[in-house]
Amino acid sequence: MKTEHTMEKITKQMKADSYQMAALSVEVRNTILANVKAALLKNQDMIFEANKKDMEYAQKNGIADSVRKRLKFDAQKLKDVTDGIDQLIQLPDPIGQTLIQKELDEGLRLYRISCPIGVIGIIFEARPDALVQISSLCMKSGNCAVLKGGKETANTNKALFDIIYQTAIASGAPEGCMFQAEGHSEIDELLECNKNVDLLIPRGSNQFVQYIMNHTKIPVMGHADGICHTYVDKDADLEKAVKIIIDAKTQYTAACNATETLLVDRAIAKTALPKFAKELEQVHVKLRGTEEVKDIIACETMQENEFNTEYLDLVLSVKIVDGVEEAVKHINTYGSHHTDCIITENKETAERFMQLVDSAGVYMNCSTRFADGFRYGFGAEVGISTSKIHARGPVGLEGLTTYKYKLYGNGQIVDDYAQGRKQFHFKNL
Amino acid sequence: MKTEHTMEKITKQMKADSYQMAALSVEVRNTILANVKAALLKNQDMIFEANKKDMEYAQKNGIADSVRKRLKFDAQKLKDVTDGIDQLIQLPDPIGQTLIQKELDEGLRLYRISCPIGVIGIIFEARPDALVQISSLCMKSGNCAVLKGGKETANTNKALFDIIYQTAIASGAPEGCMFQAEGHSEIDELLECNKNVDLLIPRGSNQFVQYIMNHTKIPVMGHADGICHTYVDKDADLEKAVKIIIDAKTQYTAACNATETLLVDRAIAKTALPKFAKELEQVHVKLRGTEEVKDIIACETMQENEFNTEYLDLVLSVKIVDGVEEAVKHINTYGSHHTDCIITENKETAERFMQLVDSAGVYMNCSTRFADGFRYGFGAEVGISTSKIHARGPVGLEGLTTYKYKLYGNGQIVDDYAQGRKQFHFKNL
Repeated sequence: MKTEHTMEKITKQMKADSYQMAALSVEVRNTILANVKAALLKNQDMIFEANKKDMEYAQKNGIADSVRKRLKFDAQKLKDVTDGIDQLIQLPDPIGQTLIQKELDEGLRLYRISCPIGVIGIIFEARPDALVQISSLCMKSGNCAVLKGGKETANTNKALFDIIYQTAIASGAPEGCMFQAEGHSEIDELLECNKNVDLLIPRGSNQFVQYIMNHTKIPVMGHADGICHTYVDKDADLEKAVKIIIDAKTQYTAACNATETLLVDRAIAKTALPKFAKELEQVHVKLRGTEEVKDIIACETMQENEFNTEYLDLVLSVKIVDGVEEAVKHINTYGSHHTDCIITENKETAERFMQLVDSAGVYMNCSTRFADGFRYGFGAEVGISTSKIHARGPVGLEGLTTYKYKLYGNGQIVDDYAQGRKQFHFKNL
Repeated sequence: MKTEHTMEKITKQMKADSYQMAALSVEVRNTILANVKAALLKNQDMIFEANKKDMEYAQKNGIADSVRKRLKFDAQKLKDVTDGIDQLIQLPDPIGQTLIQKELDEGLRLYRISCPIGVIGIIFEARPDALVQISSLCMKSGNCAVLKGGKETANTNKALFDIIYQTAIASGAPEGCMFQAEGHSEIDELLECNKNVDLLIPRGSNQFVQYIMNHTKIPVMGHADGICHTYVDKDADLEKAVKIIIDAKTQYTAACNATETLLVDRAIAKTALPKFAKELEQVHVKLRGTEEVKDIIACETMQENEFNTEYLDLVLSVKIVDGVEEAVKHINTYGSHHTDCIITENKETAERFMQLVDSAGVYMNCSTRFADGFRYGFGAEVGISTSKIHARGPVGLEGLTTYKYKLYGNGQIVDDYAQGRKQFHFKNL
């Protein structure tokens, strides 16, 4: 018989404690959040000190500037996350909500009540602010969580987690409510805990998320790829198009919602492409296009089967399509069902595009970069889902809940209904 | 390179057609359903003839009476399923519903719209009525489906499917909207189609559902076990308790929502157990209990580790527990998170039980057999989910939908908000 590994023991205890966590009143959960905020502010020097170690290590090991920006946790980032906690406290309680209430028959009343999912495993990139956001989302939604952050911020994460966890316990949360995994081997152990972990949320590279999805029986919520498209229709306003394409490609190239492929309607290709090429060159975007694109503008040649490439860089695939129908077909074939946009002044064409494109976000005349929980007004997000099950798009508090049916009777049995002695009357309450 | 197998080709085409299926108006979908109903009635002789063949084969092969009852498709069952189609036509459209609508900023409007999941694979037991219910649920919800029914009803299924499919096509559904798999090997092929199949719904034995869950990357909705409990609290009305326990155990023993374990509060065990034993004996229920149960009533001895047994028969596990807290702990440990009931006149104890038991259904004073889509007033059901992700409990039309976010803009870019030149105002519309 296999010996129980540490993560198995921890999640087993966490599962048992999760019922207590789920039973905490919203007052207690909000008090925990308020106390966590106060504790983070009170202990900020200790946190910044820990972050200094991570930053020094990163510098010593030649980690890129762009990555180091994400590792840094300073007064501004602390303010951002504590502001986020304030917002979460203000948000309505996602749990204990009555979603359905009806009387099936005299004295037999059915309620669908929202409740926490239970135990969630979240594996995220090296960003200390993510640790605070994720743990506060879990606490507001009454969920227990195993957290595993990127190793580049190990010191900062340890400092932040200790403060958050100790404060939560002292404020009424059960002891097993949270655990921070620190070793990479614990990820593989966690993947095996399908008896006690209800949901995994991996964030990070496509390759990493795919690895998680392929190595666990636990349901996984997340997005593997972010291959987003912007399609410029023959009825597009080209000035608008240029502005949107540049934002969607360059505003933050490493984001999953950055546009990777530009589709241009054949009807306007000869005028639109040279204009786009000129403007994109000025912001240092390298263009890669099919042979027929190359006939119109200077660009690198690419093959059809390369259109599933996520560059996460200042590189853009370009293709000419025969109108909205071919654009839709291309997107549904090569895209990752994340976020795709049409640029057109024709409302009817836009509706057709938005109906037929099978993505979590379908946009008209705006940048794909808007796909984000904060920009949607959901408060923070735990991630963006390209799955079609459970939650789709940016996932906030609501995606961390499920529901249970409560049925109140007074001795009712099924046989009375099966034999026709009684009838259901199904009244909404 | 692996050659593409048949199921892969079929689901690839189905995926492509699923966007057309999703775009059908509710009028067209309801017309399809009405035409299917008419066609089933018109071709009833042909269906009954096919069913006769299945019944003869079943008799020849000595299939049990109880199973043959499910295989039989007669005028009454035809009426039940066509009534079901009428009900589905009357139900509100589950797709195209606006779930959220808000303005993020001047002229930037976000909508969350319900839509079909896409391509669903449903593997179900040998029950011809299930084929009609499942395919009509999929059509009403705009989903494409691969159906695989039990082989014992192959002739009836073929007749039913041909009528339904041909009518659907003739009434406006895309050609790839449905496929009936007939060979068992096609199930394994289907499990590999994770690129094109969005959701699998297996129905059948625990072992079979576990097999599906362990052999695919496609999300699976279903219940593996149905280990339901009835707990009799010290404040129970024992007459009520007897009536409920007998219904929950005997009304239909093969159902997943039948009670498998009876938990009795220690405070009343000495008076309640003999009473229960006497009444259960009269309806031929065999009791199995722990040593301390055996000290009070005559029964077979069972060990603690046997409490995760799903009998699906006239057998009941019995245990004495120290009040509601131990009952909850037992249920959360040995149960299958399906449906569990407390019998008590104490509202407070009931609330504690219903809060802490982590199951899709938590009941007070009524039979666990009520856990069913029809009895909840959801119309038909595709199955009951014990997963905590996506849908929980009986799953009807709503569980076959997801949503997409539509964002309408007029040239908005993220950089304006990131740089503080513009602010979101988040107004509900």
